[in-house]
Amino acid sequence: MQIQDAYINRHPHHIPLLFMMDVIHGYRTIFPAPIAQGASFDPEISKRAASVAARETSAAGIHVVFSPMVDLVRDPRWGRVMESTGEDPYLNSRFAAAQIHGFQGDDMKEDGKVCGCIKHFAGYGGAEAGREYNTVQVSEHTFREYYLPSYEAGIKAGAGMVMTSFNTVNDIPATINQKLMRQMLREEMGFDGVLISDYAAILETVAHGASSDKKDAAHKALLAGVDIDMMTGCYAGELAKLVKEGTIPESLIDESVLRILQLKNQLGLFEHTHKDADPEKEARYILCPEHRALAREAAAASCVLLKNDKVLPIRPSQKVAFIGPYIDNYEICSSWAVTGHPEDSVTIRQAAKELLPDSDLTFCHGTTLLPRDHVFAGFAEPNRAEEFYADVFADPEKALADAVAAAKTADVVILCLGEHYLQTGEATSRTELSLPENQMELFCAVKTVNPNVAVVLFNGHPLLLDELSRNAAAILQAWLPGTEGGHAILDLLTGTKNPSGKLPMTFPRNMGQIPIYYNHFSTGRPLTGTDPQRFVSKYTDTPNTPLFPFGYGLSYAEFSYSDVSLSSDSLTSEDSITASVQLKNTGACTGTEVVQLYIQDVAASTVRPVRELKGFTRITLTPGETQTVSFRISEAELAFHRADGSYGTEPGAFRVWIGGSSATENGTGFTLR
Amino acid sequence: MQIQDAYINRHPHHIPLLFMMDVIHGYRTIFPAPIAQGASFDPEISKRAASVAARETSAAGIHVVFSPMVDLVRDPRWGRVMESTGEDPYLNSRFAAAQIHGFQGDDMKEDGKVCGCIKHFAGYGGAEAGREYNTVQVSEHTFREYYLPSYEAGIKAGAGMVMTSFNTVNDIPATINQKLMRQMLREEMGFDGVLISDYAAILETVAHGASSDKKDAAHKALLAGVDIDMMTGCYAGELAKLVKEGTIPESLIDESVLRILQLKNQLGLFEHTHKDADPEKEARYILCPEHRALAREAAAASCVLLKNDKVLPIRPSQKVAFIGPYIDNYEICSSWAVTGHPEDSVTIRQAAKELLPDSDLTFCHGTTLLPRDHVFAGFAEPNRAEEFYADVFADPEKALADAVAAAKTADVVILCLGEHYLQTGEATSRTELSLPENQMELFCAVKTVNPNVAVVLFNGHPLLLDELSRNAAAILQAWLPGTEGGHAILDLLTGTKNPSGKLPMTFPRNMGQIPIYYNHFSTGRPLTGTDPQRFVSKYTDTPNTPLFPFGYGLSYAEFSYSDVSLSSDSLTSEDSITASVQLKNTGACTGTEVVQLYIQDVAASTVRPVRELKGFTRITLTPGETQTVSFRISEAELAFHRADGSYGTEPGAFRVWIGGSSATENGTGFTLR
Repeated sequence: MQIQDAYINRHPHHIPLLFMMDVIHGYRTIFPAPIAQGASFDPEISKRAASVAARETSAAGIHVVFSPMVDLVRDPRWGRVMESTGEDPYLNSRFAAAQIHGFQGDDMKEDGKVCGCIKHFAGYGGAEAGREYNTVQVSEHTFREYYLPSYEAGIKAGAGMVMTSFNTVNDIPATINQKLMRQMLREEMGFDGVLISDYAAILETVAHGASSDKKDAAHKALLAGVDIDMMTGCYAGELAKLVKEGTIPESLIDESVLRILQLKNQLGLFEHTHKDADPEKEARYILCPEHRALAREAAAASCVLLKNDKVLPIRPSQKVAFIGPYIDNYEICSSWAVTGHPEDSVTIRQAAKELLPDSDLTFCHGTTLLPRDHVFAGFAEPNRAEEFYADVFADPEKALADAVAAAKTADVVILCLGEHYLQTGEATSRTELSLPENQMELFCAVKTVNPNVAVVLFNGHPLLLDELSRNAAAILQAWLPGTEGGHAILDLLTGTKNPSGKLPMTFPRNMGQIPIYYNHFSTGRPLTGTDPQRFVSKYTDTPNTPLFPFGYGLSYAEFSYSDVSLSSDSLTSEDSITASVQLKNTGACTGTEVVQLYIQDVAASTVRPVRELKGFTRITLTPGETQTVSFRISEAELAFHRADGSYGTEPGAFRVWIGGSSATENGTGFTLR
Repeated sequence: MQIQDAYINRHPHHIPLLFMMDVIHGYRTIFPAPIAQGASFDPEISKRAASVAARETSAAGIHVVFSPMVDLVRDPRWGRVMESTGEDPYLNSRFAAAQIHGFQGDDMKEDGKVCGCIKHFAGYGGAEAGREYNTVQVSEHTFREYYLPSYEAGIKAGAGMVMTSFNTVNDIPATINQKLMRQMLREEMGFDGVLISDYAAILETVAHGASSDKKDAAHKALLAGVDIDMMTGCYAGELAKLVKEGTIPESLIDESVLRILQLKNQLGLFEHTHKDADPEKEARYILCPEHRALAREAAAASCVLLKNDKVLPIRPSQKVAFIGPYIDNYEICSSWAVTGHPEDSVTIRQAAKELLPDSDLTFCHGTTLLPRDHVFAGFAEPNRAEEFYADVFADPEKALADAVAAAKTADVVILCLGEHYLQTGEATSRTELSLPENQMELFCAVKTVNPNVAVVLFNGHPLLLDELSRNAAAILQAWLPGTEGGHAILDLLTGTKNPSGKLPMTFPRNMGQIPIYYNHFSTGRPLTGTDPQRFVSKYTDTPNTPLFPFGYGLSYAEFSYSDVSLSSDSLTSEDSITASVQLKNTGACTGTEVVQLYIQDVAASTVRPVRELKGFTRITLTPGETQTVSFRISEAELAFHRADGSYGTEPGAFRVWIGGSSATENGTGFTLR
């Protein structure tokens, strides 16, 4: 507030400053990482989370949050998959819109609202070989079909700001790409808000070899319509010169200035220069019980049960050994929770003691999170390993033996494994996505003495889980669950809540399958059936299928689907049809199923995906309960970018599936006339 | 000949048939696989090889060979990298032109000449995730910069035929892609020869979902200008109907018919309906000593010495143990040597006995080529494993013990390892490129008793050689060397010839680095220097560098380069400059070095590669000899597809390097004015 006042007093026109910050999945109450939120298949809960984040952020005096990131991601090597809601354009679009609504409300002027920023425009998630900041290679058609929809959804939801991306689009850096920014973003999508560069992205076009120097970079970025230069002096140092020289018309500067002033006006800063900044509100809202409760709800909704051989949920009468490097680790909020305090987080041990007060529980680390000689090269953050695992550092063999002994006498082992939170996020690309050897050794040692091992996994990338999926009795994919992670996970482990998350990203069998994603294009020689075939699109050493497909996730309940029925086997552009199934809970407890609708356009002027998510809904059923679940299908769901460049439908045959994952075979067909 | 006569007699216009065949790297005298030929960096030898292949093919009555394949390849998972000359547009272009000249000569009518076919148009090598027949994703700019040049070079060299590819280009199958075929191939490249579909590719557009049925597929392929429908009845069954209906104008049919007639005329078939078909010539030329000699020369030129801790060459006085599954394996010709007879090939054992008649040699298999339970799913070919390794099948432990015993008493071990020839080529994509475990066990067992292990590798993909590169004393990358493989390899092992090959494809450190290639685009956050840096384009667990870079290869000689000197530090579009180095053989024997010229355009309107191969030359020097090696650089070497779509240069700074691999740091700079 003092900075704002001082600035306004000094400024000739008394125009207030914009305060902007990276608030990615919560301000101080940290929600699950975005990839985890995607797993909830519940945009509404993300909207509420964004609203809570806005409430805390706004009270702290921030006006703009650099969120949501809506980049489509297909390559788990890329660290920033953690910041995305996954591999599907439709799912990402739903979350993009929901988060913008949560941050901005109906009017960002309102108390507790902030301006959201759709990032990174565009295609950043396509970094080749999953290597951070790498070249992005997709055809323009694919770019439009898969990558652009989520940005557009955020813009349609009213996002006040868009951030450029570091990557190239058609081999020209996005930040100075006139076709991308002037044509696609401004003209086609109609975005008239503020376009900000990503951190130093304007200057970095020099390293890209696409600008010859700072001045050229500033020139090109302004021509592309970038309004704010983040962090570098390109605009501050060069724009005035460029105008004075006559290289760029002053009208271009005016255009950008006007957009920024309009945003400040939309935020009400001219009337209330501090907006909602208020230490009292900060004290009242930050980490308040309501916020923590929502974080707990969101984290529980985000967990995905990948396997369960009837070992979960645990019962209060059971003797439970909590083992593994994550039992006391409160760093479960990701590297993009910069305003959060890890110490606010509830650990597994804390939650277990609180929620199972009368049970016989033991706790052992067994091993460290990372091999003890691990170095985070170039990272400023301290490696807190010794703090968490003093016992392992003191005597690793005893620590392992203690864990094995605890496992031996327990009814169930809850083994909390995963990657370090600094192994996901920006600039953390990896070529190997297995769990560290020391953790797998712990798993094997524990598993040898007790078959009832339920693994709880903390991670931001899809990891290679082939061995675990074969040998663990249960796997709960907990991601980076945020402040209330411990509580949420215990809610699920104890059966107080029932897992309902679904994977927002395909989990590969090995590194050689990457990139692998469910909504790939049809090939001319598809692998069909199970007979050995030579000349089909396949690998000779690994199935085409992933370990776990997009949309996959189990429940403690069990669900059965009836065949898909259609209200009609054809539709025209004027009407719609309804696709329905009877969903029944055939299990022994109440549960929630994410029912998913997939459609395939069988033949078209361009190649089309083998199937695409076109709808989903969360259905909660008591044991034995049946419900009809319906989706309306109209022309809008069937449109695509046709070979001639136009957007629309083409008549012909379509297939439709309704089921519990992208691998469902529960389908039928219809015709668009 | 009988077929031709019968057909002509029956045919109302007496028009002769075209006989076409897959002659990829030799007809009966099999030359090294194309990837190996690329490693020679000697287009002239490939031209001679193509000429030999044409001679044998033509005598056998074939008029058109479906070769060369000039697809740019970057992903070693893809099986067909074996059929390409590698990852570089310039190198591929040189080989494309050379092979067309070799097949066709100055006039394909001539005795011993055939029509060549440039394939697969276009971009087939970009199959996503290295999975055969998969979608190809590149931007149009990248497609033009990297993928198209080699096809264009083949067409400029006069190729009479072009084959379509199975993949999509901008998400439309190449075979029915009008922009690709009508605009890029016909208009821009000026190709007026015959365009043939790949095997069943027209019909497969139905599976692609880009044609609704056979008729639609035929319609679309003809609109795209495909003249011949290979293998399917789409054209035969549907075109007449389409014309009759008025859906397609008869002029389109006429256009294609005329092109085919013109090709037949170019081949002289109207004058000589059998062209050179002649059993006597066949008997004279096939596998004649001259052809075998060239195959031996080509194979020796293709081998790449990846490491040599002074263990090679072997000396006649040394006791040598030849160990490994490849010592007796004559299947060293690839799965695309369909007209070859594997039994014609010279094995390692045969060549060793012949060329080292007085040496103390032992021979042991040690293990099988593949794990004994390996199955080639979908392959019709028999698994000949038992034939080659009867001893291993009889008693694997004894076979291994015999190998270890032989290694123990030898001065040098020549360990012949690799992949099965059916593990490379079409439809052989793999997610894991390590040598089989049983072979690595053999390596470890042998290495434990004798440090002087020189590994000879037979393979068509770049394999993962991290462990071998650390622990073997020498590695000779022998690829699939063809009929004279055994002789050629022994020529090198004994020092009769000196290795001079260079890698035409980057060898990755692990699967997670793929795709990795030397001529990648500049990023905005390049990794520079050796200090730990966080926010740069890198992996956290693996260097950005490959295990072996493009252009890399050793010699028994040693070469030193002087600094690069330029005739001027600037040039204009009217003049040129000369870049020179002094190359000196500082070793103890005569050797040949492939001197390579790389250039980088520092800043341009699009992002440019970090460096690009723009010239190379093979220089042979005696010990102590020095030679000046010069390359002329003119505007032609600096042109690219500019942001506005035009092709040409942009003034500014350039960097230039001359050295022995793409990783050379021996460089300087100049300016284009």
